[in-house]
Amino acid sequence: MPAEQQNPDGSLAHLLTLQDMPLATAERLFSLADFYAAGNRARRLRGKLLVNIFFESSTRTRTAFEAASKQLGADVVNLDQIRMAGATKSESLEDTVRTVSAMGAAGIVLRHGEDGAAHKAAAVAPAGVVIINGGDGCNSHPTQGLTDAYTMRQHFGKDLSKLSVAIVGDVLHSRVARSNLHILRLLGVDDIRLAGPEQLCPSALAQQLGATVNHNIDDALAGVDVVMMLRIQRERIQALNRNVDMSEAEYLAQYGLTEARAAALKPSAVVMHPGPINRGVEIADSVADSKRSLILQQVHYGMAIRMAVLTDLIADE
Amino acid sequence: MPAEQQNPDGSLAHLLTLQDMPLATAERLFSLADFYAAGNRARRLRGKLLVNIFFESSTRTRTAFEAASKQLGADVVNLDQIRMAGATKSESLEDTVRTVSAMGAAGIVLRHGEDGAAHKAAAVAPAGVVIINGGDGCNSHPTQGLTDAYTMRQHFGKDLSKLSVAIVGDVLHSRVARSNLHILRLLGVDDIRLAGPEQLCPSALAQQLGATVNHNIDDALAGVDVVMMLRIQRERIQALNRNVDMSEAEYLAQYGLTEARAAALKPSAVVMHPGPINRGVEIADSVADSKRSLILQQVHYGMAIRMAVLTDLIADE
Amino acid sequence: MPAEQQNPDGSLAHLLTLQDMPLATAERLFSLADFYAAGNRARRLRGKLLVNIFFESSTRTRTAFEAASKQLGADVVNLDQIRMAGATKSESLEDTVRTVSAMGAAGIVLRHGEDGAAHKAAAVAPAGVVIINGGDGCNSHPTQGLTDAYTMRQHFGKDLSKLSVAIVGDVLHSRVARSNLHILRLLGVDDIRLAGPEQLCPSALAQQLGATVNHNIDDALAGVDVVMMLRIQRERIQALNRNVDMSEAEYLAQYGLTEARAAALKPSAVVMHPGPINRGVEIADSVADSKRSLILQQVHYGMAIRMAVLTDLIADE
Repeated sequence: MPAEQQNPDGSLAHLLTLQDMPLATAERLFSLADFYAAGNRARRLRGKLLVNIFFESSTRTRTAFEAASKQLGADVVNLDQIRMAGATKSESLEDTVRTVSAMGAAGIVLRHGEDGAAHKAAAVAPAGVVIINGGDGCNSHPTQGLTDAYTMRQHFGKDLSKLSVAIVGDVLHSRVARSNLHILRLLGVDDIRLAGPEQLCPSALAQQLGATVNHNIDDALAGVDVVMMLRIQRERIQALNRNVDMSEAEYLAQYGLTEARAAALKPSAVVMHPGPINRGVEIADSVADSKRSLILQQVHYGMAIRMAVLTDLIADE
Repeated sequence: MPAEQQNPDGSLAHLLTLQDMPLATAERLFSLADFYAAGNRARRLRGKLLVNIFFESSTRTRTAFEAASKQLGADVVNLDQIRMAGATKSESLEDTVRTVSAMGAAGIVLRHGEDGAAHKAAAVAPAGVVIINGGDGCNSHPTQGLTDAYTMRQHFGKDLSKLSVAIVGDVLHSRVARSNLHILRLLGVDDIRLAGPEQLCPSALAQQLGATVNHNIDDALAGVDVVMMLRIQRERIQALNRNVDMSEAEYLAQYGLTEARAAALKPSAVVMHPGPINRGVEIADSVADSKRSLILQQVHYGMAIRMAVLTDLIADE
Repeated sequence: MPAEQQNPDGSLAHLLTLQDMPLATAERLFSLADFYAAGNRARRLRGKLLVNIFFESSTRTRTAFEAASKQLGADVVNLDQIRMAGATKSESLEDTVRTVSAMGAAGIVLRHGEDGAAHKAAAVAPAGVVIINGGDGCNSHPTQGLTDAYTMRQHFGKDLSKLSVAIVGDVLHSRVARSNLHILRLLGVDDIRLAGPEQLCPSALAQQLGATVNHNIDDALAGVDVVMMLRIQRERIQALNRNVDMSEAEYLAQYGLTEARAAALKPSAVVMHPGPINRGVEIADSVADSKRSLILQQVHYGMAIRMAVLTDLIADE
């Protein structure tokens, strides 16, 4: 965990990454999330100004943060890609953060295409202005990682350590995969298997991340409790084979979660996906909508986690 | 009225269409609108999350719903076309509705280019999530129909049954025309005349809608109490004549509400338009701004109607 | 000051320009700003509907107004360029103002590319609807002028009359320069020097504005207390020399605030810029971040000024 993320008293100054987060911090966030997941609401950010700065477009994450902030009573302003693009020459990320801070923002949720953007923002944010990483490049997406772990706890109970988890698809470009690895390790999960085509799920990366890797999906899924599918982008599929164009149907057949693969899972196994899902590409229609699927629960608990994070980092007292 | 629109106790589960709406339901909405039209405000949606999902762009309707929702104290989030377009491959309407519902939305206002989109959304919305149709394809625009009928009631009194109403222009592509026909029929208006060029106001359609049709505008306007002009799009004018390009001025002369035509109306007749108006195309400048014009009253009462609809469908107790 | 800006009792009906503003009005706004600059917040616009209409894109000004309005408890709706562009043929400014007013707006903040747009809006706004000019063409940007003067007062004390102020850069196209000239004159500042290349800072214009002009930057900066740098657009630099393309580095060397020029200033001199800054074009990186720089204070006090303006023009009693 970067030094700037945590205050001397153990409270979070920013939320940039889940790497090396103390277990007590994660547990504190999960406890707060329990309050909101039970349907409670509290206007604990009343009068606080929150700004969502999204250099990359994102319907889902921006909407979730905006809704969570508003349900906590905050005053919320969105700056998004499109408005930024108005200037002939855009202001730097750092100048945007300084400017929004000078306007009185108590917190900034940042989505940016570059690895490390949230850390850069935290480095220039004045004291008292909280940076929350809403996804930076291929690096980190901490609220998604917390959401996914929290969803598993709600389903399987608080001890996740005995679970086997497969993370499948474009691991190479996935900040979600990295944040899940960090939080699952922290929560004691030993058996984490990365799976996907070698080009998108390189053995070297798996080694570096301390996980096992399997390029055969069926082998990877044998006996797992959780299958976490990652979103794959069309252009990545096309790049998989320089000579022969791979179709989306072929990708599904070789690397996706088909109905047959889902049927071969343990009866108690669940299917997760950070969304938005590509039906018929990385996941079959019927699997996304099956009883195994926790996809909508992830969205639901994602609100509780975001309200927990916002409360923990920004609410008074 | 589709079965899913109404709960067993007669309350509205969704607002998708005005077709076959019970008269008591319309009267209940008008009563609620009276409260807001009198200038009263009440934060009856405090703490409720409302999401405006606009697949088609619309300044006016989105702004009206957003303002109405905020004036009722709701927490409002907009998802619009532009943000949606960010994804390389867009999520389906149904998945977007499921996702936003899982985030805790109490209500979704949907604008979509396809006929029946709001019905599709209602079919997948979980219990307790209200869908309000903000316009779907050429099919239905229920809050505009209610607004227009309410504006007539404020002007002419509660009994509209003796009025003659002409709806003029591109009836073929107009959801506003259809919703007006439904509500005016419900309120007992017998004399509804559709008028416009045959290509945009086909006799077959008029028959199907149970209205008379007149391709000569001057004949259609003779003796009417209300002239409702529809917005015409430039590309529709160009398509009217495959060989000769029709100019906007020629369209106005042949099919528009000119100063001369307005002067020939009954002294008590009024002019309406759902907006935004094309000055000098379907309506002359001076007519839009004349004393006959109820165009800005429509905007004003549109707020009261939207607050009434939101209160009726979403407020507690 | 245009007649429509001020009510018979001396209160502001609109804020369109700083030209000929009575000194007492400016002092009243500064007093109100003191309250907010001290960190106080008050929900004095609770239940009021404010609409930001931005025909030109602007991250900074729109965000500042939106945040200020929300911190005052208003219900805020944004209409921006992109949404407007949805219509095949856009509604006129006047019709948009009439429509938004009919929706119940208490105030409209307008940014528009044409000189005089805010005056046009005020001319059609019904009684009780306040127009605040958020920048019109090259004409006026009153809240920025108030912000800059207020920032100087916070730094130098209330009497600005003895200060020497240089305004440097593209004065020709700058509404900020014009509004600063108006407010500084009003506050008794005699020594205002305009500086920049003749094409962007014509002698005739300076004469018309009643200021001195200097095409040699170093001469203009000698002995000044305040250097106000204006944002320059790339296309303007290219147009400076029809035969030889001027690079941004060359512009900085000839007309920008370099480190050497900043070092030659009086020790007590300050540097200002309305933002967003073009680092390395009109201002050197190190100067923008130096202790002399009041750039972030301008952003900070800009919030207090906007809250003051909104309170003065829109709050009840």
